[in-house]
Amino acid sequence: LLGLQVETESTLLQSHGSDWTRFYAPAPLGVVFPRTTEDVLQIVRIAREHNIALVPSGGRTGLSGGAVAKSGELVVSFDRMNQILDFNPTDRYVTVQPGVITATLQEFAEQQGYFYPVDFASSGSSQIGGNISTNAGGIKVLRYGLTRDWIAGLKVVTGTGELLELNKGLVKNATGYDLRHLMIGAEGTLGFIVEATIRLAARPRELNVILLAVPEMGAIMNLLAAFREKLQLTAYEFFSENALQHVLQHSGGRHPFHDSAPWYALLEFESLTETDTDQAMEVFEVCLEEGWCLDGVISASEAQRQELWSYRERISESITPHTPYKNDVAVRVSRVPEFLAAVDAEVNARYPDYEIVWFGHIGDGNLHLNILKPATLDTGVFKAECEKVSEYVLAIVEQYEGSVSAEHGVGLIKRDQLHFSRSPAELAFMRAIKQVFDPDNIMNPGKVIAMDNPL
Amino acid sequence: LLGLQVETESTLLQSHGSDWTRFYAPAPLGVVFPRTTEDVLQIVRIAREHNIALVPSGGRTGLSGGAVAKSGELVVSFDRMNQILDFNPTDRYVTVQPGVITATLQEFAEQQGYFYPVDFASSGSSQIGGNISTNAGGIKVLRYGLTRDWIAGLKVVTGTGELLELNKGLVKNATGYDLRHLMIGAEGTLGFIVEATIRLAARPRELNVILLAVPEMGAIMNLLAAFREKLQLTAYEFFSENALQHVLQHSGGRHPFHDSAPWYALLEFESLTETDTDQAMEVFEVCLEEGWCLDGVISASEAQRQELWSYRERISESITPHTPYKNDVAVRVSRVPEFLAAVDAEVNARYPDYEIVWFGHIGDGNLHLNILKPATLDTGVFKAECEKVSEYVLAIVEQYEGSVSAEHGVGLIKRDQLHFSRSPAELAFMRAIKQVFDPDNIMNPGKVIAMDNPL
Repeated sequence: LLGLQVETESTLLQSHGSDWTRFYAPAPLGVVFPRTTEDVLQIVRIAREHNIALVPSGGRTGLSGGAVAKSGELVVSFDRMNQILDFNPTDRYVTVQPGVITATLQEFAEQQGYFYPVDFASSGSSQIGGNISTNAGGIKVLRYGLTRDWIAGLKVVTGTGELLELNKGLVKNATGYDLRHLMIGAEGTLGFIVEATIRLAARPRELNVILLAVPEMGAIMNLLAAFREKLQLTAYEFFSENALQHVLQHSGGRHPFHDSAPWYALLEFESLTETDTDQAMEVFEVCLEEGWCLDGVISASEAQRQELWSYRERISESITPHTPYKNDVAVRVSRVPEFLAAVDAEVNARYPDYEIVWFGHIGDGNLHLNILKPATLDTGVFKAECEKVSEYVLAIVEQYEGSVSAEHGVGLIKRDQLHFSRSPAELAFMRAIKQVFDPDNIMNPGKVIAMDNPL
Repeated sequence: LLGLQVETESTLLQSHGSDWTRFYAPAPLGVVFPRTTEDVLQIVRIAREHNIALVPSGGRTGLSGGAVAKSGELVVSFDRMNQILDFNPTDRYVTVQPGVITATLQEFAEQQGYFYPVDFASSGSSQIGGNISTNAGGIKVLRYGLTRDWIAGLKVVTGTGELLELNKGLVKNATGYDLRHLMIGAEGTLGFIVEATIRLAARPRELNVILLAVPEMGAIMNLLAAFREKLQLTAYEFFSENALQHVLQHSGGRHPFHDSAPWYALLEFESLTETDTDQAMEVFEVCLEEGWCLDGVISASEAQRQELWSYRERISESITPHTPYKNDVAVRVSRVPEFLAAVDAEVNARYPDYEIVWFGHIGDGNLHLNILKPATLDTGVFKAECEKVSEYVLAIVEQYEGSVSAEHGVGLIKRDQLHFSRSPAELAFMRAIKQVFDPDNIMNPGKVIAMDNPL
């Protein structure tokens, strides 16, 4: 079949039929490992002819089930299309196959004296094709934007079995509809990415971190505005006191402040001038006087910078033993305090026994809401209850004109909740676009939008 | 009709039936001036019912005929939807109606202490709705990107008469196909923009300009790489010696250098530190030693910065008396020297009597090719010959994988030349997308892509 080996070994079916989402039992028909664009074209053409559903598979680090094959699909793994094809220093472009690991691209950029700025927890395993298909964000979005902002060209095999070469690395190209941007974030439902041309950034100068103890949520936004006014911020994160307590209990270490506070803000800035650190201290003094923060620590070395980051970065692993139910939502930055209070009030009123842990990329309006399972509660009961909670939470997201998936994508998990963020007209247009590029519904069917089951 | 006045006064039909493109005779049915989104919805619904073709009209500064009404269309002018609706300093967002003049937005941003960085020659007349519909670029793209990069949310009335509220100002929103990006650059052929939420940037610090005399085109790219390595460039422009001669003849003034050179590069950089000017001088010394430039001038004051810019900015008006035939093309930055030489050779071989004037945003790979009419040649003959030249030039664009319209859009003028930049498959997908959003072909019909006349 296909001139390519279809692998059906059972551990491979298990591993390549799922992603980090653990709610679905993998059951693919098989797994193929194309090496070239021609291989992918051939796979799609044969799949179309025989009506075989295809699931694209990258680093399988997704959290929404976008790469899950649970219904006899053929998994198309990009593990062997993992070459860096070209680097052009004049353009500052690197051309890669989709299976290149994000961290490999980051390292390659560094070796060339440049910087690939999209970074997140799973960058050691995730692949570029998957990053593009979910428009990956992460911790540097405040300064550098999303994956979308770094894609100068894309080659895509559509569900019609055609190869599109989109934008070809041009900076300016006013020639009608930008199909490249349509493919970015489409989670492989319109076509599979077989090559990407990626812009690199200049390396940042010296980075510093400030951790602030904050008395109330509204002040977090005042702090953001005050520091952003004077400094080039590269990140602005937040977490709650109980998030910090989980980190300290899990990893040891001591509390960074003498007195605890309800919230902590972590900001990173690039020192462009020698006086930027003094400037940061001046802003800090003003914020202290205003009462927006109660205390603060600034990194004086790279080791301290890493240490301060670790309070934020270890939260996820620290709460894992408590079976957290996660929601990755976003609202406009200015609406964060009001939105967060509304969600807190709703969940606390309905489920006073559940512990809520908040953290996230608050400078982008992106909040990770984690509800922890009470130790004595049955997991099945907890999950069922959390799904109810989720409906309440997402109704609040809708009320605040937010996103039901800030950076984790839609996949299977958020598909039927998309209506909280997208109108019926938008969903109908999305369905029509899907029909244009994938008329037989063979490209990651069932993900993002249901075709067999119109709303 | 419509509950809105349809104006049919003949000077209004003339003015609002055309843009800066002068090849078409305006012949609209009438002009309407909606004031609200509801007005636009009503216009589209009635147009759909009665099969009336609509042409969106903004500042009418387009150069590709995108806003021309030459066949009895109803012009929908956004002149009266010109309000700034909201400004949010936490989000750094300004929400505007589509008829706001670009310069008005720039001034508003400045008054608030921020910066709207998209800037170009026609910003005093062009409207934001038109900027978005053509994804306007201009002189700061190297640093700040295109209009696309500043749009956080869009409200659009589609050809089906539906109102879409796209992205709603979210930074992160991984909820499927990004219809906002599909609307940007669509030249009103899928829907009309009725509101936009626009991000503002921080104001740049001190700006300086360096003008360099360059012995050969390849060196222009070495200079770009050398300066970009050490400085934050905000613009990188180029022009030819004969372009400079036209400016000097037209406006007076003296040659900026003792000895003339075939090419000049103008770079602008932001001084982030006190030592950046010294750094610039160091880079200049190295480039001089390498032979990449023959001489250079750096601005020592704001007045000198303006003066150096004026050599570049006055080219267009200086050559206007010579009836220039313009082509606005782009290739990858690294391919510029080879591409430019190929075009030069082709045009010189076929038309040795034609003077070619080159200038443009070379840091973005964007070249403005101007062919001047020999004084004794009949205008009609010249135009006909230039259209033949254009075919040769665009075939070279295709060979170098470039864009037939870097920033002027497609409109009517480039529509039938789109195939030099977009494949038959891409054109077919564009046509199918047009059918999805505008099934009756009433939204700016005949622009960007021909629906009645498939290739």
